[in-house]
Amino acid sequence: MNPVLVEVLRGSAVESRHAGALAIIDASGAVHTALGDIDRPIFPRSAVKLLQALPLVASGAAETFALTDAELALACASHSGEPEHVATAAGVLAKLGLDANALECGTQWPSREPVLRAMAARGDVATPLHNNCSGKHSGFVCVACLMARNAGADPAEFARGYVAAEHPVMREVTAALSATTGTDAERAPRGIDGCSIPTFALPLRSLALAFARCGTGHGLSTENARAARRLRQAAAAAPFMVGGTDRFDTRVMQAFGERLFCKIGAEGVYCAALPELGLGVALKIDDGAARAAEAAMAAVAQTLLKTEDKVLRGYSHLQLRNWRGTEVGMLRPGEALSAI
Amino acid sequence: MNPVLVEVLRGSAVESRHAGALAIIDASGAVHTALGDIDRPIFPRSAVKLLQALPLVASGAAETFALTDAELALACASHSGEPEHVATAAGVLAKLGLDANALECGTQWPSREPVLRAMAARGDVATPLHNNCSGKHSGFVCVACLMARNAGADPAEFARGYVAAEHPVMREVTAALSATTGTDAERAPRGIDGCSIPTFALPLRSLALAFARCGTGHGLSTENARAARRLRQAAAAAPFMVGGTDRFDTRVMQAFGERLFCKIGAEGVYCAALPELGLGVALKIDDGAARAAEAAMAAVAQTLLKTEDKVLRGYSHLQLRNWRGTEVGMLRPGEALSAI
Repeated sequence: MNPVLVEVLRGSAVESRHAGALAIIDASGAVHTALGDIDRPIFPRSAVKLLQALPLVASGAAETFALTDAELALACASHSGEPEHVATAAGVLAKLGLDANALECGTQWPSREPVLRAMAARGDVATPLHNNCSGKHSGFVCVACLMARNAGADPAEFARGYVAAEHPVMREVTAALSATTGTDAERAPRGIDGCSIPTFALPLRSLALAFARCGTGHGLSTENARAARRLRQAAAAAPFMVGGTDRFDTRVMQAFGERLFCKIGAEGVYCAALPELGLGVALKIDDGAARAAEAAMAAVAQTLLKTEDKVLRGYSHLQLRNWRGTEVGMLRPGEALSAI
Repeated sequence: MNPVLVEVLRGSAVESRHAGALAIIDASGAVHTALGDIDRPIFPRSAVKLLQALPLVASGAAETFALTDAELALACASHSGEPEHVATAAGVLAKLGLDANALECGTQWPSREPVLRAMAARGDVATPLHNNCSGKHSGFVCVACLMARNAGADPAEFARGYVAAEHPVMREVTAALSATTGTDAERAPRGIDGCSIPTFALPLRSLALAFARCGTGHGLSTENARAARRLRQAAAAAPFMVGGTDRFDTRVMQAFGERLFCKIGAEGVYCAALPELGLGVALKIDDGAARAAEAAMAAVAQTLLKTEDKVLRGYSHLQLRNWRGTEVGMLRPGEALSAI
């Protein structure tokens, strides 16, 4: 059984518990910290969007289509579907002479209440551009368009079906995942992600290694090392694009810039790179809770960066308030996590 | 450690796991089923709204103010803040000559996306009537108004502060909790609930006993036995009021009527009464996940009622679809739960 990483208190009593596993690894593969089973494969979901975006830069597509920091940051994002995110994704597609019809991520209303409420009040209707993955998918379409150009094919036609595992774009994405994690993702247990692309179950050890490599460039090809650096810089320059208003990834990267690249994934996953320490982090909450993944990631970042930063502390010890604003409880790191 | 009650699959791989504990008890206190630790106190939250509504009927307030089935069902509800719920809560207060200002549950926007979206599109603004607990609180205010009438006091003034543990209304509510569970709730670990009333941590064994008693009347005072029966009948007659569109409690009670009273609570709690079997059920998912509490409750109900009902099966084996509608996974009962 994995240890309790995060406890939820109501008053002074523990109301709920989140168990999970955590790997902190350096670029040589040496283990800095291991809690729980870091060798069991887990689906990393959107926590590896940085890795999935490597071909966008490494292929030359980002340069060919003159993508900005904001557009590259959006390619690594699970964004909140706010107007700036939607406009930025639409802008990428416009550079390709395409529109939202090129996206195969599906239509999603924003999940955050105030964003959803503002959108409904404006009379807006959700489109694939509002999907939290629309930036990543716009990036995939960029890669497809460059491939089409090189092959003398019609871009829209070439791009069609890009979410399928056997499409040339997705083959590149999976190859980047394999190269950075040091695994053969093609042979890993496979699922379909929320945005319809394949997701491969990989050990936390391998995922943390990939992020250590992306933070340092060690163990990567020249192209991937350069691409990882470019994407990290873009996220640090435009952190709003990676998440949105009041989102963990946005707030933390606003506070720490290039010192910390972090990215949440569905079902309680977090991955992060800490370049100055040469470390990569990967964690999974067994039950899939985002609140616990954020609290655990915040606790890890505080420990590794030796900081008492208020944004991080606000997540690792999140105050829980009820509908009248009364403080009723809090999150806190479990014993195992407090001891790292 | 408690056993895994619910697994979450992506493709054919288990992506997430929800551990928890389950008690199924008869009205004599005999254990039908125990999984995990059923003696550790847990906060039952809104799963005990039936117990908290007993004084509303037992005191005579429901009769005095001529509450309908819909109004009594709403007193046991965590509703979705749909127009019918809001109007019904407002109607109860109007019978007392009061309005939303009498409610101390706080303002809450509906949490379910389509409900929230429709409300924002209409230009509506959340009030305490939209709070999922507004029916329960309207019931508390009814009890306060009867007490005020008996004491010759001003109703609004008497009711003020009814959420406090020491208020005469809340003392009655806590006494009902103690009487039905066979505990001294006053001495239990105490927290503040989402709607600002106290919540007391009690063992699943005691909570299941209370629901067995409420389903059968055995072990209850005449007044509480009558009140429990009246409230169960009201919920069966007006199940929409207990939850709302596409909500578990509503759909299941629409399907099973008085054969099954069930109620979810925040942080992964479920309580239920199965009168024909003389059994009460109480379960808590360790991590607080509602999806797992629903799946576990659905699995328990199928087993106990020996039914292959599609509504229950739809929750115990919930299909997970992505933004394009592709089936990507499912929930299923864990080994321990499958074996009961």
